[in-house]
Amino acid sequence: MIDFPYLADIVTASPSKIIMLVVDGLGGLANPETGKSELETAQLPHLDHLAKQSSCGLTVPVGAGISPGSGPGHLALFGYDPVKSLIGRGALEALGIDIELGERDIAARGNFCSIDADGNLTDRRAGRIATKLAAPLVELLDQIEIPGAETSVYAVKDYRFVLRIRADELEDGVNDTDPERLGVPPLLPKEQNKSSNKTAKIVSEFINRARFLLRDRSSANMVLLRGFSKMPALPQMGDSYLLTPAAIAAYPMYRGLARTLGMKVIDAGTDFSSEVEALHHHYNNHDFFYLHYKPADAAGEDGDFGGKVAALEALDTFIPSILELNPDVLIVAGDHATPAVLASHSWHPVPFLLRSQWTAGEGVPTFNEKVCASGSLGTIQANQLMLLAMAHAGKLRKFGP
Amino acid sequence: MIDFPYLADIVTASPSKIIMLVVDGLGGLANPETGKSELETAQLPHLDHLAKQSSCGLTVPVGAGISPGSGPGHLALFGYDPVKSLIGRGALEALGIDIELGERDIAARGNFCSIDADGNLTDRRAGRIATKLAAPLVELLDQIEIPGAETSVYAVKDYRFVLRIRADELEDGVNDTDPERLGVPPLLPKEQNKSSNKTAKIVSEFINRARFLLRDRSSANMVLLRGFSKMPALPQMGDSYLLTPAAIAAYPMYRGLARTLGMKVIDAGTDFSSEVEALHHHYNNHDFFYLHYKPADAAGEDGDFGGKVAALEALDTFIPSILELNPDVLIVAGDHATPAVLASHSWHPVPFLLRSQWTAGEGVPTFNEKVCASGSLGTIQANQLMLLAMAHAGKLRKFGP
Repeated sequence: MIDFPYLADIVTASPSKIIMLVVDGLGGLANPETGKSELETAQLPHLDHLAKQSSCGLTVPVGAGISPGSGPGHLALFGYDPVKSLIGRGALEALGIDIELGERDIAARGNFCSIDADGNLTDRRAGRIATKLAAPLVELLDQIEIPGAETSVYAVKDYRFVLRIRADELEDGVNDTDPERLGVPPLLPKEQNKSSNKTAKIVSEFINRARFLLRDRSSANMVLLRGFSKMPALPQMGDSYLLTPAAIAAYPMYRGLARTLGMKVIDAGTDFSSEVEALHHHYNNHDFFYLHYKPADAAGEDGDFGGKVAALEALDTFIPSILELNPDVLIVAGDHATPAVLASHSWHPVPFLLRSQWTAGEGVPTFNEKVCASGSLGTIQANQLMLLAMAHAGKLRKFGP
Repeated sequence: MIDFPYLADIVTASPSKIIMLVVDGLGGLANPETGKSELETAQLPHLDHLAKQSSCGLTVPVGAGISPGSGPGHLALFGYDPVKSLIGRGALEALGIDIELGERDIAARGNFCSIDADGNLTDRRAGRIATKLAAPLVELLDQIEIPGAETSVYAVKDYRFVLRIRADELEDGVNDTDPERLGVPPLLPKEQNKSSNKTAKIVSEFINRARFLLRDRSSANMVLLRGFSKMPALPQMGDSYLLTPAAIAAYPMYRGLARTLGMKVIDAGTDFSSEVEALHHHYNNHDFFYLHYKPADAAGEDGDFGGKVAALEALDTFIPSILELNPDVLIVAGDHATPAVLASHSWHPVPFLLRSQWTAGEGVPTFNEKVCASGSLGTIQANQLMLLAMAHAGKLRKFGP
């Protein structure tokens, strides 16, 4: 699932080090009042200086018009085909709360919901009950025991939980039970093909018992399940690239994703300051570091243009500390754009820079969408970036005689 | 293996002529002292003038981060998918010394080497013995006769030779015998699957006899073999493009490659001056000319920045003579970059120009990496160039009704 079919023939281990700083939601769009994007508005002296010494360009995370979730966005940056390496919604939700998913496991996203006496939905989210109210319900459902399977229920936040089913011969082709409207009963967990018969039966049994256990609860009296998924068996980064990769991320979902790809997850604390400390502390032990910066995406999702500008300016102040390590290859990239004017992930190509000893003379004056579009690397698929990093790090031999 | 699946439906013969000048290792990188690449440093009045009248851009030989050998680099320029049309190391070495390889043939690269009394390697290249010392050994091995097969041994240079095995039902999945370290015996030529059993047996027998014949020689007493390969059956350029293609190259490997693609190899002498003479002499007899210029790559490989600049300037002086022929389409392109600062082939996109009567108004002021990046054709895969040449030459009809 990594872009180049002969990678194993040309990859070579070397002591050189790569840091990939992923700025979540990095790309943006112009504020209609100023005509300038978040990156163009922000004062970014250190990133601008870095851009002058780097090869720059734009990455297309998945394809034209496709706004990726965090899963595909990150997988592409690590060199995986984001379409062929899709991680299901349930599995990604499980990763997001640090739940281990093995080969025999299927995960689903769960909602607590409300039904009337006839079994028809009255609220698909049970009034968005708070975590505190949901906790005893989670505990209740976690006690369900189904012969031949092991089911576990984990709280996420508010009315949301994760169901993990562990058994032999489970397949994940099972339909969502959420009808996405009110006044009708939840759907049955229908199998999409014969091989997911067993999963559908276990899920059905789980739902019956859940409904029974919740029957007298006032906070929520039913569950909806969706996104049944196994964790795909993805090639491990260490094997594919002959790297000893490490992940430094304050948010669980990104740690979980990294673990799935075989990265060593380093304790990163809860903010970017502690992430950078962790990078310094562990710098000698790995040759590839994925460093994740979340606040730009969070502000973008909130539609907070000024907040995103501030988040980018805050990031900029950390660049000198990262540069102190003098990595052989430093990449600053984004998993997708999150323009504040859209208040959501978007499909736009995302600026990136790559600095190595071989990028002299290729730089651009500033680091933003417009200028990077005319950078020396132009607009490339995001999953090519990792191979470029490997080449610049001297970790790829010549292909073909 | 040529990019467009309906090529046969739209290709049409015409009297127009295409010259493709392949400047080996054309692309470069900035000299850190000046911030300018070899092309930016060189005085190239004729190429610059040509760039003003051409469509310009950059070619990606194989993919991001992939540094191609000469084989994939050239195959892409001729329109072949360089990953699917891989030529093995042994076959390419055979091409390099003008050995004919047919369907029943397998070629391997050979080294003379030295082993001690216990059969362990003491020198993988037998002290890099000179061609003169190797010649009698080659003659000796060439006399080996194995029932049911015809084996031939050809000198390459110094300690290197090519072994060609000719027999029915040979497959090339046989492991190298070079263990790539000293103090251990050579590896056995192990078959990678059942269908290469027969090849492995013949190779094994050849090695036994070679060891016996060389046992008392002081210059080298053993052989190592690697890169067992058949010549892949590639579509012929004449058939695919309805061209009568000719190759003019002073170096054997490029002639061999061209012959494999069905080009007529024209006697080109030993340097570019005689190549251009040959082009003039044979210009009426063909409608596609592949003209190969080697010195830029050679200087780049040596890490000789000034030498590469000089090689490019020397090339520039030949442009007027080529233009005298007034070809309908003239392409100047490279099989890959060979930046002097890297002293090796590299993965970087390579500048190209394409001039035809239809490229007026598309030019760029000078011919180098930076300026071509903003040329009218942008950054394209190298194997698209041949179809562009065909279109500009009026040799492709409309696709679809």
